[in-house]
Amino acid sequence: MTDDRQDNGAEGGTNIDFYFDFLSSYGYMGSCKIDELAARFGRQVTWRPILLGITIFKVMGLKAPLETPLKGDYIHIDSPRMAKYLGVPYKHPAQQPNPLNSARAYYWLRQRDASLAKDLAKALLVRQWAQGIDISSAELVADEAAALGVERQETLAALQDPAVKQLLADAVDQAIAEGVFGSPFFVVDGERFWGVDRLPLVEHWLEHGSW
Amino acid sequence: MTDDRQDNGAEGGTNIDFYFDFLSSYGYMGSCKIDELAARFGRQVTWRPILLGITIFKVMGLKAPLETPLKGDYIHIDSPRMAKYLGVPYKHPAQQPNPLNSARAYYWLRQRDASLAKDLAKALLVRQWAQGIDISSAELVADEAAALGVERQETLAALQDPAVKQLLADAVDQAIAEGVFGSPFFVVDGERFWGVDRLPLVEHWLEHGSW
Repeated sequence: MTDDRQDNGAEGGTNIDFYFDFLSSYGYMGSCKIDELAARFGRQVTWRPILLGITIFKVMGLKAPLETPLKGDYIHIDSPRMAKYLGVPYKHPAQQPNPLNSARAYYWLRQRDASLAKDLAKALLVRQWAQGIDISSAELVADEAAALGVERQETLAALQDPAVKQLLADAVDQAIAEGVFGSPFFVVDGERFWGVDRLPLVEHWLEHGSW
Repeated sequence: MTDDRQDNGAEGGTNIDFYFDFLSSYGYMGSCKIDELAARFGRQVTWRPILLGITIFKVMGLKAPLETPLKGDYIHIDSPRMAKYLGVPYKHPAQQPNPLNSARAYYWLRQRDASLAKDLAKALLVRQWAQGIDISSAELVADEAAALGVERQETLAALQDPAVKQLLADAVDQAIAEGVFGSPFFVVDGERFWGVDRLPLVEHWLEHGSW
């Protein structure tokens, strides 16, 4: 964890950790807000994609929210109106994307250039959630990376590299160890916040540092 | 459902339905806010206690949140700070109460006097969540009702009455049929809102009637 912090941003321990799953509409909404909010308080944000449906819900013994009776139907209603309420461009998809290739590409690029990796994550989130284009395929992820100057074949090879797969697996394990269980999930000065609806509390914490 | 609406408030279809579980800290927080918010827009609120842990989570195939790995720990952190953020008096209990007697007493009294039933629910929620006094026992519920002028023995008898038990069971079945799955849960003009953190969206809807 220490190494992970050191290679990200100059602020060190004052960085905000932003966990999200590419398959999560609320995670996307969080991604549209957190950097600007952090900047207002002189903070930087470390983006940390996770895998809720594939990994973390298994640890919790839960079904994915969209597959949960009653809750699944509700999310289809709540996501579009929450996006409107937050003023975030949004296109509700017929089904959630598979986040695996996006998350792997992020951690792979991040070893090279944290800023470039964040740009790729933003581009993928916009494609999926603002434009309604499914980001599941390796080809689409490679196209988005290519638009940022990364060789297409290099990205496609990286997505199959066992070392890259392990990078993501380690990141998810670390998130679970930190008590992360949802998307978006923010950790600020050790305070944990789950949900885009907790951004007002994140702001309160950044302003006051107490409750 | 029609009968149920008719015996509550003069507003009929413009009433806000407020579903909550007496065991839910967030339900309590919602109870501190919803009547005042509704009144600002000329609305009345029908309170509808439900049983999440005992009934609704079974339909959803979920464990209760406090018994869910990772999420359980988080709620112990999030509840107290959310109460502070909302400006609501709060005492975090060592364990959640059993909501059965409180919910039965509510639906029993409501047949007689909807306003009295709401006063009892408020008193019980304050005892549990602002004063930290466990409201599980029939005796405590009867004491609270007695403070509102209801004969103690009458309440104790009602809590064992199969017809009263059925009133509550029917209310929970109706809530599930309406898609309710959490606490607090608000239904306004057919729009469903889950969570005390959705009160800003309830307010937006009451003000604009659109998204």
